[in-house]
Amino acid sequence: MDFVLRPIGHVESPLQNRADAPRQGDEGAPDAWLVFEESVREALADVRVGDELILITWFDRADRDVLTVHPRGDTTRPPTGVFATRSPDRPNPLGLHRVTVLETTSLRLHVNHLEALNGTPIIDVKPVLGDPSER
Amino acid sequence: MDFVLRPIGHVESPLQNRADAPRQGDEGAPDAWLVFEESVREALADVRVGDELILITWFDRADRDVLTVHPRGDTTRPPTGVFATRSPDRPNPLGLHRVTVLETTSLRLHVNHLEALNGTPIIDVKPVLGDPSER
Repeated sequence: MDFVLRPIGHVESPLQNRADAPRQGDEGAPDAWLVFEESVREALADVRVGDELILITWFDRADRDVLTVHPRGDTTRPPTGVFATRSPDRPNPLGLHRVTVLETTSLRLHVNHLEALNGTPIIDVKPVLGDPSER
Repeated sequence: MDFVLRPIGHVESPLQNRADAPRQGDEGAPDAWLVFEESVREALADVRVGDELILITWFDRADRDVLTVHPRGDTTRPPTGVFATRSPDRPNPLGLHRVTVLETTSLRLHVNHLEALNGTPIIDVKPVLGDPSER
C-alpha cells in the first residue's frame, strides 16, 4: 500500500545543483527561504522567529533505486547500505534538516544553514523537541 | 505535483491504539521490532547494534485535514498551528522517532522506546549525525 505526499511549499536557495551543495547544513550551507502554500497558512501561524525546526523535504533529484553508496561519495570507502548513511539517494528520498527561523513574513520563513537545493519541495515542519517539562 | 511513498517495512509493537501510546518515545514507550521488506535488504545491511537511528514512519491513523490542535490534547491550551507541534494529525503525517538498535536479525531491528503503533508503516531510516569529523 502506497501513500501520497502533497508538498506544502518549496525552498528558495542560491544552491542550484547537487555539485554545489554542502553535504550537511552545518558544513557551510547558505541561508534560504521556505515558501509555503496558502492552504497551510493556519498550520504555520505559530512558528516564530528563533524557533528551532526540523524541516522535512523531498529530494526530487534523488535516485530511488540506489541501495548502497560510497559514504560522502568517497570511493575509497566501501559501499554501504543507504540506511546507515545520509545519502539523498534512497527508496523514499526524504531530507531532514535542522534550521533556526531568522525571519517570518506571511507564508515565508527565512532560515539558516540549509543544504537543500533551490526548488526542493517541502513536506513537513516540526519543532525540535525540548525538555519534556516544556512540551 | 505529488510524490508516492512506498513503505519499506512496518512496526511490531504492543501498542495497539492511539489512546495507549505515549506522546513521545522518552515518555515510557515500549521496545518494538522494525520489520523490513526483502527489497531493502542491501540498504539495511550496515545498520549495527548500538547505532542511534532516526526512524521515519507514516502515521496511517492520522487526520490529514487538521491544521490546528490543542497541544498534547490539553483543551486549556489555545489552538496551535500543527507545524509548531508534534501532533500526528497534519497534512503529511510523517513520524520522526529517535531510537537505539538493541538487536538485529536478518530483516528485523529491535529498538528501544518507540511510541509508534503496531502496524505503522516504515518509510525511511537514517543515522543520527555525529560530530562532523566522524562522517
